[in-house]
Amino acid sequence: MENTSQAVILVKCPDQRGIVARLASAIHDTGGNILDAAQHTSESTNTFLQRIHVSWTDKNVTQESFQLALNPLIESLQLDLQIKWGEEMQNVAIFVSKEDHCLHDLLLLQRDGALHCSISLVISNHLDLQDVAAKFNIPFHHIPIDDACAAEEEQLKRLKENNINLVVLARYMRIVSPKIISSYEERIINIHHSFLPAFAGGKPYHQAHEKGVKLIGATAHYATVELDAGPIIEQGVIRVSHKDAIPNLVHKGRDIERTVLARAVRWHLEDRIIVHANRAIIFE
Amino acid sequence: MENTSQAVILVKCPDQRGIVARLASAIHDTGGNILDAAQHTSESTNTFLQRIHVSWTDKNVTQESFQLALNPLIESLQLDLQIKWGEEMQNVAIFVSKEDHCLHDLLLLQRDGALHCSISLVISNHLDLQDVAAKFNIPFHHIPIDDACAAEEEQLKRLKENNINLVVLARYMRIVSPKIISSYEERIINIHHSFLPAFAGGKPYHQAHEKGVKLIGATAHYATVELDAGPIIEQGVIRVSHKDAIPNLVHKGRDIERTVLARAVRWHLEDRIIVHANRAIIFE
Amino acid sequence: MENTSQAVILVKCPDQRGIVARLASAIHDTGGNILDAAQHTSESTNTFLQRIHVSWTDKNVTQESFQLALNPLIESLQLDLQIKWGEEMQNVAIFVSKEDHCLHDLLLLQRDGALHCSISLVISNHLDLQDVAAKFNIPFHHIPIDDACAAEEEQLKRLKENNINLVVLARYMRIVSPKIISSYEERIINIHHSFLPAFAGGKPYHQAHEKGVKLIGATAHYATVELDAGPIIEQGVIRVSHKDAIPNLVHKGRDIERTVLARAVRWHLEDRIIVHANRAIIFE
Amino acid sequence: MENTSQAVILVKCPDQRGIVARLASAIHDTGGNILDAAQHTSESTNTFLQRIHVSWTDKNVTQESFQLALNPLIESLQLDLQIKWGEEMQNVAIFVSKEDHCLHDLLLLQRDGALHCSISLVISNHLDLQDVAAKFNIPFHHIPIDDACAAEEEQLKRLKENNINLVVLARYMRIVSPKIISSYEERIINIHHSFLPAFAGGKPYHQAHEKGVKLIGATAHYATVELDAGPIIEQGVIRVSHKDAIPNLVHKGRDIERTVLARAVRWHLEDRIIVHANRAIIFE
Repeated sequence: MENTSQAVILVKCPDQRGIVARLASAIHDTGGNILDAAQHTSESTNTFLQRIHVSWTDKNVTQESFQLALNPLIESLQLDLQIKWGEEMQNVAIFVSKEDHCLHDLLLLQRDGALHCSISLVISNHLDLQDVAAKFNIPFHHIPIDDACAAEEEQLKRLKENNINLVVLARYMRIVSPKIISSYEERIINIHHSFLPAFAGGKPYHQAHEKGVKLIGATAHYATVELDAGPIIEQGVIRVSHKDAIPNLVHKGRDIERTVLARAVRWHLEDRIIVHANRAIIFE
Repeated sequence: MENTSQAVILVKCPDQRGIVARLASAIHDTGGNILDAAQHTSESTNTFLQRIHVSWTDKNVTQESFQLALNPLIESLQLDLQIKWGEEMQNVAIFVSKEDHCLHDLLLLQRDGALHCSISLVISNHLDLQDVAAKFNIPFHHIPIDDACAAEEEQLKRLKENNINLVVLARYMRIVSPKIISSYEERIINIHHSFLPAFAGGKPYHQAHEKGVKLIGATAHYATVELDAGPIIEQGVIRVSHKDAIPNLVHKGRDIERTVLARAVRWHLEDRIIVHANRAIIFE
Repeated sequence: MENTSQAVILVKCPDQRGIVARLASAIHDTGGNILDAAQHTSESTNTFLQRIHVSWTDKNVTQESFQLALNPLIESLQLDLQIKWGEEMQNVAIFVSKEDHCLHDLLLLQRDGALHCSISLVISNHLDLQDVAAKFNIPFHHIPIDDACAAEEEQLKRLKENNINLVVLARYMRIVSPKIISSYEERIINIHHSFLPAFAGGKPYHQAHEKGVKLIGATAHYATVELDAGPIIEQGVIRVSHKDAIPNLVHKGRDIERTVLARAVRWHLEDRIIVHANRAIIFE
Repeated sequence: MENTSQAVILVKCPDQRGIVARLASAIHDTGGNILDAAQHTSESTNTFLQRIHVSWTDKNVTQESFQLALNPLIESLQLDLQIKWGEEMQNVAIFVSKEDHCLHDLLLLQRDGALHCSISLVISNHLDLQDVAAKFNIPFHHIPIDDACAAEEEQLKRLKENNINLVVLARYMRIVSPKIISSYEERIINIHHSFLPAFAGGKPYHQAHEKGVKLIGATAHYATVELDAGPIIEQGVIRVSHKDAIPNLVHKGRDIERTVLARAVRWHLEDRIIVHANRAIIFE
């Protein structure tokens, strides 16, 4: 290990006195410098949560030695610890159907360096967006879902063989199978085109128009087996009026969908999210 | 009639060719000048809606003569017409419970001329806000709701004897009786402290906290017998995070509640709202 | 002329009684149906402004016959009238430099039918975005500006030979020559990456960072010879904090720039803008 | 000292490795528990900034003993340290002229417990708001500014005799003297009714109307001798259109002014602000 190495440490443990100081000291003892730290205490569950961004210039620290150094604390403080090393680039799979505004946005942001990841493949139940993937030189897999079991198997195979760390449902208009959801817990981000919990399920813009709301929204959340009910990562809204027929709502909604989804994906990739008690805590 | 007189005309009729021109001509023939006009066509119901703001300097026009002049059109175009004359000041009753931020805001706005109305009385099921009403010299009626029937009767009596045109439920934490609602159809505005249809019913900030939403909202709507389901007039949201415990949500929500309610009340008083097919069309 | 024809009529004239009714009648007499109408009176200049959207099913109306029918009114009311016929597709030229987020957005929106126009060509002082234009099959002209006079001449030639109606400066980082600006008055839309009039001129995000503002913005405006001072069409802002270093401001700003520019371009193409007294009135 | 005591520690020092860990350890050694901590590094000035919220249940810690415990670190790390003890209630003076929306809001928020301070007095160059102060039982001092020197002297006297910690200029329409500004550096918060740096100086809503902006704003900032140029604490905007004449801008602006000012005052009172290099860092 030659140059500076970095890691983000995500901490969950029962709340108790002294956690911050003891963790900071342990990190300091390995030669680590705390570039940023943010914490939150959930009062209802008495749980302490923290995100710590550390750098080392010391050539002697390794992932193993650092883990070893923290072991005593892990035991005494009952830490649930995730350590994400800066060197590890995450592999992302994007699922789409026919609409490409979210896909385009993610591809452009990744290309511009705003999303630190490798986009490994695009999976779709339709052929429409094959061209878009091709323009960005991303492998495209057409997996129709006529046979749901075969589709699930094929999807899982593609995710496994590409060592996918994060699945982004970028307006994928089909339900992802429970098996895939449980295999990628807290690693599947979906964009739903409403301000959840309002208008869960199908055709949210039609529902919004019917109800006559004055704002429409979008919600990025981790997928869970219960539809549109997983931990909410980010939300946004935009003003609408009676002048906006449904096609207008769809057009206006696109801007919100793509920006909300892009923020959620970025936060995930930067290890800024801890899910606790079905809520996503964002250390922005 | 000496000086300029003004009226706002709210129009509903089956959509057909020529309505705008024929109405404009008829108004012009009475000496009226169209200061502002805005229209909307509901495609789903094939209904034409329009708001026309007219002024006359001609001394000979009267409410009766104007109505007479429009009668032929009313028949031939099947117009559902409301004419609101500028001279008629609306009388407003405000219902409150214990929280005073909305009440204060409405009283201050009315005093500053931003709400063109007379605030005739404040009705509450508690005594807490008697002082606030007193500071602004508004009669305060304490109507406890232990006996629901007696309360309803007393409320109705107060509304009738004050010739109330508009009832504002400014964080009145009780259900208004169906009898009152049907007596003041489209003339009772409620503020609900959530982004409806999400979190209807009780304790919306608790529901929002539980769900982990990233924005909280407020909704002003006309009261209907179905709770929190009447036509939505205005909505607003404010950003929140995991750092916001419920008391914080309550504090943040107050700003949104009062501004959303104030806008809805102003639009109603300026005759900018037409309710059609359970949706409130705002001619802003 | 076989089917329905449509036009948007933009009106400017000295304010006076009866304009709305007389115009509506004149239009009605040609068989026109007023689909939408919105008006504004500038008190300071005593000027009446109106946008009227008309449709005809009558096969006998032509651009000439309609113009003839309005001539008497034009004279008596001193109307400054623009009539935009729905059949006429506008030709758009997009100027860019190196950044492609606005270009991509306009190309995608046009492709999806959200911008009713033909994008005729992309002009750039750099070669970077040649590929993007190619992907969308839009002719790309590389016009370096080493020789300012030659560049101006070449730009003008390209605009003329393509019958360009609207020029969009989509993060074109050079000043457009006064000659071009005066040839395309109120037909060149620029996006400036600040909330004007704050931070006009170069490097607005650096200026914003230096000043420590809590919101950054973008402004779409018609280009005039005075830099960043033309009539403002649309503005938007996004929240920032001390955590946002300049590259972050640039990234956050992109979302605002593209959405603000796209809205401005759409409003222009839908003939929703009247410029009066250096202000852009938007009939949204 | 019997029960839990709390403090907020605001830290500024040259950036260097190990600050976070060494401070956390030092605090831990006094029996302190870190309830919250947030940090920021200014790259351009190589300065480390941190806000640490600490609680002690240990009865033996005192302000003196804690200060003593930190002294070695203060020297070795060159810490510029401010320690704000939770027991110390801040005394606030509010300066007003004729408009009362900000004053009302601050008084209501303080009464409701949302602003943790004592509002000691209201100072005005007019008598208009004497009643408002009286309703809330706050001493009101009418200090006309015909004689600027006498006014300054009287204002300073009132501030001193009330041990004022924070001065809030809640739409005080006069310039505060340089002597007062330098006596209360970073302890005078002003609300300016524009999105600074746009429209500094007088009549910002008139300037905004003239310019035709599509959003108006408000800015809360620390007062410095240079007018409207001090460190920006918070900003907000609201959408406007050509329909909004100046009185409407004034009305719409009020909501933004009061909410922006209230947030800035709250952050100051909760010791969430560090001013560095003329920028206000907010640890929200």
